[in-house]
Amino acid sequence: MTPAQNAMLDALAATLGPRGIVTDPADIAPWETDWRRRFHGHAPAMLAPASTREVAAVVAAAAAHRVPLVPQGGNSSMVGGATPPADGSALILSLRRMNAIRSVDAAAGLAVAEAGVILSDLHDAALAVERRFPLTLGAKGNATVGGLVSTNAGGTQVLRFGSMRGLVAGLEVVLADGSIHDGLAALKKDNRGYDLTQLLIGAEGTLGVVTAATLRLVPVPASRTTAWAAAADPQAALALLRRFQSATEALESFEILPRESLAAVLAHVPGLRAPLDGEHGWHLLIEHTDDAGAALMERLLAQALDDGLIDDATIAASDAQAATFWRIRESISDSERALGPASQHDLSVPVDAMPRFMIEAAAACEARFPGTHASGFGHLGDGNIHFHVRSAPGTDPARWYAEDVPVVTRFVDDLVIAAGGSIAAEHGIGQMKRDELERLSSPARLTALHAVKAAMDPLGILNPGKLVALAPKPPAQ
Amino acid sequence: MTPAQNAMLDALAATLGPRGIVTDPADIAPWETDWRRRFHGHAPAMLAPASTREVAAVVAAAAAHRVPLVPQGGNSSMVGGATPPADGSALILSLRRMNAIRSVDAAAGLAVAEAGVILSDLHDAALAVERRFPLTLGAKGNATVGGLVSTNAGGTQVLRFGSMRGLVAGLEVVLADGSIHDGLAALKKDNRGYDLTQLLIGAEGTLGVVTAATLRLVPVPASRTTAWAAAADPQAALALLRRFQSATEALESFEILPRESLAAVLAHVPGLRAPLDGEHGWHLLIEHTDDAGAALMERLLAQALDDGLIDDATIAASDAQAATFWRIRESISDSERALGPASQHDLSVPVDAMPRFMIEAAAACEARFPGTHASGFGHLGDGNIHFHVRSAPGTDPARWYAEDVPVVTRFVDDLVIAAGGSIAAEHGIGQMKRDELERLSSPARLTALHAVKAAMDPLGILNPGKLVALAPKPPAQ
Repeated sequence: MTPAQNAMLDALAATLGPRGIVTDPADIAPWETDWRRRFHGHAPAMLAPASTREVAAVVAAAAAHRVPLVPQGGNSSMVGGATPPADGSALILSLRRMNAIRSVDAAAGLAVAEAGVILSDLHDAALAVERRFPLTLGAKGNATVGGLVSTNAGGTQVLRFGSMRGLVAGLEVVLADGSIHDGLAALKKDNRGYDLTQLLIGAEGTLGVVTAATLRLVPVPASRTTAWAAAADPQAALALLRRFQSATEALESFEILPRESLAAVLAHVPGLRAPLDGEHGWHLLIEHTDDAGAALMERLLAQALDDGLIDDATIAASDAQAATFWRIRESISDSERALGPASQHDLSVPVDAMPRFMIEAAAACEARFPGTHASGFGHLGDGNIHFHVRSAPGTDPARWYAEDVPVVTRFVDDLVIAAGGSIAAEHGIGQMKRDELERLSSPARLTALHAVKAAMDPLGILNPGKLVALAPKPPAQ
Repeated sequence: MTPAQNAMLDALAATLGPRGIVTDPADIAPWETDWRRRFHGHAPAMLAPASTREVAAVVAAAAAHRVPLVPQGGNSSMVGGATPPADGSALILSLRRMNAIRSVDAAAGLAVAEAGVILSDLHDAALAVERRFPLTLGAKGNATVGGLVSTNAGGTQVLRFGSMRGLVAGLEVVLADGSIHDGLAALKKDNRGYDLTQLLIGAEGTLGVVTAATLRLVPVPASRTTAWAAAADPQAALALLRRFQSATEALESFEILPRESLAAVLAHVPGLRAPLDGEHGWHLLIEHTDDAGAALMERLLAQALDDGLIDDATIAASDAQAATFWRIRESISDSERALGPASQHDLSVPVDAMPRFMIEAAAACEARFPGTHASGFGHLGDGNIHFHVRSAPGTDPARWYAEDVPVVTRFVDDLVIAAGGSIAAEHGIGQMKRDELERLSSPARLTALHAVKAAMDPLGILNPGKLVALAPKPPAQ
């Protein structure tokens, strides 16, 4: 603990009380490493305020003592975005005690949730008043509202409802000087200058600390229809996507996976079987909530079969069967991990460019790195896939991660930029992609990012080392 | 013309050519006054670049010579946002020559339009490929894409599709140092740091110059149903709004007007007649594009009649009749202006709070300013009304505007803030509301606005005096 950190904790002791200041290393340890165990940091203390006012006191004290803070929710970042630096210079600011759902208004379609509310709890609270918060993702049992906002999280329902950016109606934020910005009022039209809510969404805790959010709720759909289809190639899948989009505004998911992803799941997860007989190159998981229900799904799939766009298809006959389809989809990452170490990339390109990218990027990687296997799966409807380059059989994992992954990453990222895409689609930048963001951004974008960071966090105390490379100021004497 | 301005024009002469530099006062004059003739400025020259590269050259030269620029599109700002300062210190940067629609992609639902494209031309280009750009407003024949983006414009279809913020998929922007940020790629998921596109939307040209935008298009609806209804009070109107929202996702407009607004229109516009017989306190203009068509409208209105929510209603029997309903709605501002000078306010509060606000704010104004008449009309579904306080009969207009309007404005703005609302709903801040924004913003918000402005435009050359009060730096010697 540095003298500045000690002085800061002393100053906060009365405000936060014993539950609000955690210094036992055993209690801090689980939060010093990210959940995939890729990033390891160290924090000599963890602050756990229970109210917005307490968060404001923490940030004001951090500013006064020049002690950096690492805001943290469920610690489910995919890019080391919530892991403290290894040198112990920063303290963890846990928002998990701020877990109240302040209000749920079914008629207005709005809920106000504090930063520490877990996504699945928000889902339940909405359902209790016959509404839905239409964003979900694998980590829903851990991910918190603050983290979802701060990473502009996506998931499998973005196609219809957008990412968090489209679902946040207002924010309460503690700024870097400890002042509170109350922007929770859900005004449908508000043009009072620069939109601080939008600026904070996706800022990864580097511009301010999100303490609560007003979130949009939508009606619970009367019916949900889920299908599995097989296509010869991603281009045919895209054509089918466009047909669905022309036919209904209630298309909620359009996921694609290659033959090898399905094979990996079937080999890894006991009791699962392929939804369709025979061998197929590409598989599609399609879901809509149109009132026309299974009839619409049947019509579009039958027509696609007739036209040769797809080879086979089946509509889930029950909720249980639909859940099985989704279990296959959600088991891909774990199943592929069991096949060996891989370089994993969360990327996006314009939707129309994705079919070609999936084929050509895989071929380019395998040609450039002999023995590797490359493939992508995910949200075709969003132009966003998770692209994995698996190491050649027999590769030493330590060498792969230390030496090969950075080279593979730069190669893949260059392909993404050449296709007009983004190297950070739904997982953000964190510490993992920070240097690549610097390398691949235009001077105009970089200058703007640095200027905004320096303006909103002049002392560099908010989530240092994440997203942009601005060093914190040295502690005050 | 100052020496710095002369030097800047000399430096730009070769790049812009004679069409790109306008110095004849007669050619500049129409652009020195806003369209409502409330704000008068002076610019010794107007720059009219024809390409993004030329805009970049203009901004780079302005930075080099410390000459402020006032970006301007259709000059239809309601808040003096595009009118130059009166002292001649700034030049107008007209984007009107940049009027190409670079692409329209019906399948992807995207159009790329340059800043100078007029809204009605964009509507036509979308319709030509059977798509719709779902934002419209009274000034559609003048307002340009750059201005719509920079003011986060709203209008009468925001209820379903949102304001510009929800319709912009990407931006091309010239930043304050003359560098070009190319963010036109329409990526559905992109988390590469702070969202510069969202930061520039609604920034009123004070952080960068928008040169082009990628805009979302939606399918043309198969049918459109328009109705006129009469309600006893705004609270009943709100209850009806919620019923419509529960019944369909395709509710596009829900406008409210008081008896006196309708009377003003009927007195002012020859040939128009009231859609319903008899006298009614409040009128509603309701429009949906649900496939269920008139049957849905009939069912909901019949039920509302049965339940006493509304007193009477009629469904437009033809497109011509629907157009007549809209003509009434769109004639309110002009008609009320004919009744005498008024203090006009574009404000929003949470939707549920609007009925009470409409009644209480009107009563409070009339009590505080005896002889005046106050009422609001507009977008009930967005929680956004245009609230007019008309001067007492016999008031001298010059005195009203100079002395009374500022007092009335502060009174109304205080009511809005007390109701948790925004003093700038869809018209922005410009120069008209800048001091009120300063007066009524929290220290946290103000500090953040000033910090962002200083970071993105350190020389203060972009639309000086608008939105935030930061003085430009003196010209370089």
